[in-house]
Amino acid sequence: TKEKKILVLPGDGIGPEIMEQAVKVLEWVDKNSTLSFKLEYEVVGGASIDQNGIPLTQEVIEKAKKADAVLFGAVGGPKWNNIDFNNRPELGIIGLRKELGLFANLRSAIVFDSLIEASSVKPEIIKGLDLMIVRESTGGVYFGSPRGIETLPDGTRKGINTEVYTSKEIERIARVAFELARQRQNHVCSVDKCNVMESGLLWKEVVTEIHQKEYPDVNLSHMLADNCAMQLVRQPSQFDVILTSNLFGDILSDLAAMLTGSLGMLPSATLGEKQSNGVIPALYEPIHGSAPDIAGQGKANPLAQILSLAMMLKYSFNEQQNSRKIVNACKFVLNQNYRTPDIMSMGKKEVNTQEMGKLILDHL
Amino acid sequence: TKEKKILVLPGDGIGPEIMEQAVKVLEWVDKNSTLSFKLEYEVVGGASIDQNGIPLTQEVIEKAKKADAVLFGAVGGPKWNNIDFNNRPELGIIGLRKELGLFANLRSAIVFDSLIEASSVKPEIIKGLDLMIVRESTGGVYFGSPRGIETLPDGTRKGINTEVYTSKEIERIARVAFELARQRQNHVCSVDKCNVMESGLLWKEVVTEIHQKEYPDVNLSHMLADNCAMQLVRQPSQFDVILTSNLFGDILSDLAAMLTGSLGMLPSATLGEKQSNGVIPALYEPIHGSAPDIAGQGKANPLAQILSLAMMLKYSFNEQQNSRKIVNACKFVLNQNYRTPDIMSMGKKEVNTQEMGKLILDHL
Ligand SMILES: CC(C)[C@H](C(=O)O)[C@@H](O)C(=O)O
Ligand SMILES: CC(C)[C@H](C(=O)O)[C@@H](O)C(=O)O
Repeated sequence: TKEKKILVLPGDGIGPEIMEQAVKVLEWVDKNSTLSFKLEYEVVGGASIDQNGIPLTQEVIEKAKKADAVLFGAVGGPKWNNIDFNNRPELGIIGLRKELGLFANLRSAIVFDSLIEASSVKPEIIKGLDLMIVRESTGGVYFGSPRGIETLPDGTRKGINTEVYTSKEIERIARVAFELARQRQNHVCSVDKCNVMESGLLWKEVVTEIHQKEYPDVNLSHMLADNCAMQLVRQPSQFDVILTSNLFGDILSDLAAMLTGSLGMLPSATLGEKQSNGVIPALYEPIHGSAPDIAGQGKANPLAQILSLAMMLKYSFNEQQNSRKIVNACKFVLNQNYRTPDIMSMGKKEVNTQEMGKLILDHL
Repeated sequence: TKEKKILVLPGDGIGPEIMEQAVKVLEWVDKNSTLSFKLEYEVVGGASIDQNGIPLTQEVIEKAKKADAVLFGAVGGPKWNNIDFNNRPELGIIGLRKELGLFANLRSAIVFDSLIEASSVKPEIIKGLDLMIVRESTGGVYFGSPRGIETLPDGTRKGINTEVYTSKEIERIARVAFELARQRQNHVCSVDKCNVMESGLLWKEVVTEIHQKEYPDVNLSHMLADNCAMQLVRQPSQFDVILTSNLFGDILSDLAAMLTGSLGMLPSATLGEKQSNGVIPALYEPIHGSAPDIAGQGKANPLAQILSLAMMLKYSFNEQQNSRKIVNACKFVLNQNYRTPDIMSMGKKEVNTQEMGKLILDHL
């Protein structure tokens, strides 16, 4: 069937308003392709806490499992800051990754030429930048146990988390990185902290094994996480694909995104293993967060959400042409000097969330 | 007594050659102050592996404990890449931190005006930058157990590390940050990943408690580690003192150092708790590593090592004036346009390690 089921999870903060614009673009694709989309909306994160008492209901998990793809906004905000740790809004996204087995979080840092001046980094350092971070997303310290806070007899409290990776987890994420590299510049840089952590040592060993056995044609290098943070600042263009753990990937991908000056523009895909029915579970979301400070004011930039949709078309539905059209529409509108407040600069034309969405649609 | 015992540990790579220049400056201080210094040299890291089979001998630990301060170069290099994990050169520095109880690693990121162009970040973003990272350095995932690599019955390997912090460890490092902030811009930003890790949640709680009880006059904010990486790139001048864990501090301090474009210039101090004899155990080292690729070629920049010595004079020996003189000598020589290869740019005068050392001395 060409009918695709999409679970739409706007979430919190600016999530709903940017999702609204992305859905309009999705409706355009519905009319202009052989695909048709059946959308289902659900709450997640803080919105789900408010409605159901928990950030991720079993019902939403089931719907996500049955969907062909999940389009996700963002979760969290100060409203839920003092909520119990085991009930925090972030479990909306973390739980979905785990429940759907979405172990490969792909985050690209791309510089849009028209926004190059928005970066705090010199234009010559980031011009043409196009790197991809392959972040493991169902393992590591995010999920390891034992974990928690305990109180010792003398009153001292102890906070514990466990970083754990099995060779199997490392193998499958390494394969994703090597496959992607083959379609790109053929270079994987694997990042760990193997001079301090045994889990990083195993990471490095397993990546090296998979490389030798299955991908000897791909160039592989290794880097320590602290050095990678430095090198990203010094010369990000040295990277093609960066392969790393959940926690390092969280930090390094945000760093890379900020280098581009285009944070409000960057989408991500999180993929799982192919199911018996041929579907690869997939969730698409902006790299940026829920930005509660500007929520509901029409200031949010919908482009990352719209580009997440473009990623969905490409990765989940092999709809290359419409995906490219959407990316090009975003570039076109930027080249026409339209800007939401987050990327506004002198001499440009400021528009709000809705207007930006409409400009994209008009161009399409 | 005014005689101070200094344990000098040049270590590996460029360590020995930059240390040579720092020691010359130390000899100058010896002659030009009421202090006199008794230097003892020892091997550490790879050099100690080569000589003693292990990266840190009991003898060196004892000497370090008896010294008034340790002046450290750098450790590690490809020569020891395939050595057993429990015998790696990095244990030279990690072991010293632990054995001497050096829990407070102070790393400042300062921009030298004359080097501002060397940064990949726009000058207006980093001009005048002066932030301090207070990194916990005897706890966290660096030392937590269980740790190691185990093989399961089915052949799967499992790499494990444990992040653990007690409230006491957090309290004492928080106090260091608050004390420093009072002497600076009075603002501490505490960085954790409390939306994912319980150890980070405890971190945030304890820092908040210490703040309320003991330092209500200092401004305190909290930030997630991924956001901090972004904010350091976006607008580093928003920070005064950043307080964080061992692992996040490792990554964020390298990131901050690279922002300045002055990596070869940045010193650090690692301090312990005051002993019964009144001495605060202290180790001073450059932030940069052992740079094995350029070792022995006279290309290394000795300034971070010399500035580490200046930090030693200030923090350990209250020798403010000579400390300032050394810092000024470094600035003067840079203003005279002398540059080692790592900071060389067009129109400047390239000098080698020795020449740079001599220029500093000549100015002193
Ligand atoms: C919201 C948060 C739990 C999440 C993470 O840490 O993975 C976010 O920072 C991200 O990178 O997607
Ligand atoms: C050499 C290494 C073990 C060390 C660390 O990770 O602490 C270094 O990167 C540092 O920051 O001092």
